[in-house]
Amino acid sequence: MKIKKVSIIGAGNVASNLALALFNSDIEIVNIYARKIDKAKNIARQVGAIGMDDLKLINPNIDLLIIAVKDDVIEALQAEILCSIPIVHTSGSIPLSVFSRKEKYGILYPLQTFTKGKIIDMQKVPFLIETNAIDFEKELVVFVNENLSHQVKVANSDIRGQIHLAAVFANNFTTELMVIAKELLLKEQIDLDILKPLMLETIDKSFSLGPEAALTGPAIRNDQMIMQHHLNKIGEDQQLVELYKIMSTLIQRNIKT
Amino acid sequence: MKIKKVSIIGAGNVASNLALALFNSDIEIVNIYARKIDKAKNIARQVGAIGMDDLKLINPNIDLLIIAVKDDVIEALQAEILCSIPIVHTSGSIPLSVFSRKEKYGILYPLQTFTKGKIIDMQKVPFLIETNAIDFEKELVVFVNENLSHQVKVANSDIRGQIHLAAVFANNFTTELMVIAKELLLKEQIDLDILKPLMLETIDKSFSLGPEAALTGPAIRNDQMIMQHHLNKIGEDQQLVELYKIMSTLIQRNIKT
Repeated sequence: MKIKKVSIIGAGNVASNLALALFNSDIEIVNIYARKIDKAKNIARQVGAIGMDDLKLINPNIDLLIIAVKDDVIEALQAEILCSIPIVHTSGSIPLSVFSRKEKYGILYPLQTFTKGKIIDMQKVPFLIETNAIDFEKELVVFVNENLSHQVKVANSDIRGQIHLAAVFANNFTTELMVIAKELLLKEQIDLDILKPLMLETIDKSFSLGPEAALTGPAIRNDQMIMQHHLNKIGEDQQLVELYKIMSTLIQRNIKT
Repeated sequence: MKIKKVSIIGAGNVASNLALALFNSDIEIVNIYARKIDKAKNIARQVGAIGMDDLKLINPNIDLLIIAVKDDVIEALQAEILCSIPIVHTSGSIPLSVFSRKEKYGILYPLQTFTKGKIIDMQKVPFLIETNAIDFEKELVVFVNENLSHQVKVANSDIRGQIHLAAVFANNFTTELMVIAKELLLKEQIDLDILKPLMLETIDKSFSLGPEAALTGPAIRNDQMIMQHHLNKIGEDQQLVELYKIMSTLIQRNIKT
């Protein structure tokens, strides 16, 4: 069976990006549900669907229901959906077992960050898929491949969890490092933008040559004088001192002896 | 006085990028010095200069000598240069005082990472300038502005030191986070490339909307269950556990109460 008729629960950044991408790929979007009817109708209008704020009104005659809402409301929402409707959620963290009373269920996890008002090119998004049944898995792989992105990967919860953990290190922690850099620069009235060319080049180099090849700075050179100077400079903020020390230790694990 | 005739000490990534950019901007490059004559001659040939491995042979009739070598050899090299030659180094860490016996001296620090064999677009590189004399400062600003990059900033050692510290956090530590992510993914035979679209989007968002707006993940949501799950998963590596905890604490300083 081929997935052609889809409904979406949610009207946030993930839901709206998925709705637009599927609509542009000639998938029929039947219903968009959101707690706030205005938000549901707003997206529904753009994709020729019917917006609603009542789960009971969702048309059961569809091939797939996508729950694209915050992690902590998935459990409550899915309990109100008919068991016979094939269903997926889009979370990297919530396990497959949240759907254990359904017949056909799975996870369709887009490994990307979505921003309000910004349309993401879905072809550049890796999708991780897990399901409760091999035939449904095949249907979902074809569905993503034909309508969203060629970067589809079947990944069980262990693998998805490991990718999520790696993403937290590479992505969430990097973002926080930029918050810290911004605050350090603000002390001298300098804008974070001064670091943009350096960061773009380093990210590019890390992906083309590998991050080990892009490692520079005092820790990898074991330049104790500069490191001590830095520690003195941030001395009033004990948590930053601790971060500086542990990061330097981790960087030095890369030094070949 | 306008800087027109330049010599360069060094044949590494910074030296060769500067040499090519200046040559393409019609600056006359007189000498290229390197300890290894082959490396000096290789760059010299590309920019119409004379390559050499003997500092005594450097033509003193120039407007600027640029020392673009590793931090730890700047001191020894500069001691062998005539005091009357205007001189700068390109290091973010070495203080101006390394040149205190010269007449006109300064720092010309390109805030970028340079890779062997890769030509960097100098127009996208911010240059930080510090000198011992206001007239020389003006000459250097004009020199960079006309021949290298419009992003020139006069910055004393305190400011340059603070920018260097911010760059260590944003750049060196981010690179190490990508090394860690690569290792975490390798445990499941997954390539780091799977995180590329996510990281590029986050970096883009951090610079366009500010890094605080790009913060996602379990720490900023204070999702204790996922964080504990992650800590269990990396439990065998105590340094990673420590990093995860301190980064989560720092991220949570951004939560508005």
